[in-house]
Amino acid sequence: MKMKIAITGKGGVGKTTFTAILSRLYASDGYRVLAVDADPDANLALALGFPEEMMEKMAPIAEMKNLVTERTNSIPGSFGKMFKMNPKVDDIPDRYCTEYKNVKLLTMGTVDTGGSGCICPENVLLKRLTSHLILRNKDVVIMDMEAGIEHLGRGTAQGVDALIVVVEPGARSLQTYEKVKKLGRDIGITKTLVVGNKIRDEKDEEYILSKVDKDKCLGFIRYSQDIVDSDRSGMSPFDYCKETVEEVKKVKSKLLSL
Amino acid sequence: MKMKIAITGKGGVGKTTFTAILSRLYASDGYRVLAVDADPDANLALALGFPEEMMEKMAPIAEMKNLVTERTNSIPGSFGKMFKMNPKVDDIPDRYCTEYKNVKLLTMGTVDTGGSGCICPENVLLKRLTSHLILRNKDVVIMDMEAGIEHLGRGTAQGVDALIVVVEPGARSLQTYEKVKKLGRDIGITKTLVVGNKIRDEKDEEYILSKVDKDKCLGFIRYSQDIVDSDRSGMSPFDYCKETVEEVKKVKSKLLSL
Repeated sequence: MKMKIAITGKGGVGKTTFTAILSRLYASDGYRVLAVDADPDANLALALGFPEEMMEKMAPIAEMKNLVTERTNSIPGSFGKMFKMNPKVDDIPDRYCTEYKNVKLLTMGTVDTGGSGCICPENVLLKRLTSHLILRNKDVVIMDMEAGIEHLGRGTAQGVDALIVVVEPGARSLQTYEKVKKLGRDIGITKTLVVGNKIRDEKDEEYILSKVDKDKCLGFIRYSQDIVDSDRSGMSPFDYCKETVEEVKKVKSKLLSL
Repeated sequence: MKMKIAITGKGGVGKTTFTAILSRLYASDGYRVLAVDADPDANLALALGFPEEMMEKMAPIAEMKNLVTERTNSIPGSFGKMFKMNPKVDDIPDRYCTEYKNVKLLTMGTVDTGGSGCICPENVLLKRLTSHLILRNKDVVIMDMEAGIEHLGRGTAQGVDALIVVVEPGARSLQTYEKVKKLGRDIGITKTLVVGNKIRDEKDEEYILSKVDKDKCLGFIRYSQDIVDSDRSGMSPFDYCKETVEEVKKVKSKLLSL
């Protein structure tokens, strides 16, 4: 098994938590996992449990441009070539990947200065990079996308095998799901799956199932005070929230079958 | 009193709900309110209670470019001039504003097609427009910003009197608050206020107060099942959630004093 997936959905639904747990689960099973933090306002490293000293040393993809030019004498706009020459997951320059508990992490970086501009160049670079990765057996790439739908306009996740939309039992996150499904098809992604998060009771599950394609639903994750507490204490939910991890395990099994 | 404010924060914290209630409150007090939906993945019209037939007719700002060129023979990049000629809140072309219950609404529009590109042009236009608005007494402009921090890189809200960051009692939304404060200063916004949302108990309030500038805190809004229900049923929280409206009223009073 090998796959490239992107985790998407409305802000605040739990994309980063889900990405972190799923990544750590695949790593525990012996997969080579590349986790990509494509959200300038998230902190996937923190959710993955990276120690602070490792986080401080990490360089974002924004700085990768120089390296690409340096190594290939390529002109801007021709980055694709370099990535074709250098395509395997475990060939991504170690300088930009930091590894912890068998998960390699690549981060897009954040907005450092107000008024400094958009993050379009970083999105282009990430699109080039991830769409040219050639996976071998037991390679898994999991991208944690920016909240909302602009990344689908940019096509950042183009070339993934599936989009997984995290939804919560509310109308707005399900509207985002509908948009993601449509916009994903526009960029050639035909498989859009869904995970229901922050479930409090059966009515929540029924509500979500009434709004999504039932056969594309990977399962449900219950609302958990442990997740809230792990967020506050800066702990990885994978190490702290055993019940949620068990629920994500079931989602992962279902993912194989869809 | 007159003011231009931008509501910001991590995805899912309740920006749109807060913007909608605050806008309707000012309108009830006889203010001329211009609400701006600057989030391509939100639906401020729905939260404001706009009837469906009005929402269907609304044109987004994305289509405004043509009008600007049409009326001014301006060349792209010189939109500022037009807005200087046409600067008052109530002069914004009615074609782009839809009014309901004394709130005028301007929407940035959504991403219609996957792979069609970023929403930088729309952000530039919005920045030009809002930073050139000259307010008279009893004019209030309230912008509901895109989740996260990219809009601060773009400087979309440049020229507002204050940023109001909506936070919930969790580490990640408070990290976003810290980033917003810093990035806001970079674009010349020195006033960054904060509202705590989804409060369940006193410990939640204490947690937030321990992480923000206490004298910049506008108050707290409790977690409310009514808000969840109004979302699911597509009702405006202003018409449906009396307790929350009372809490936002207190925030509004405090806003005057800061």
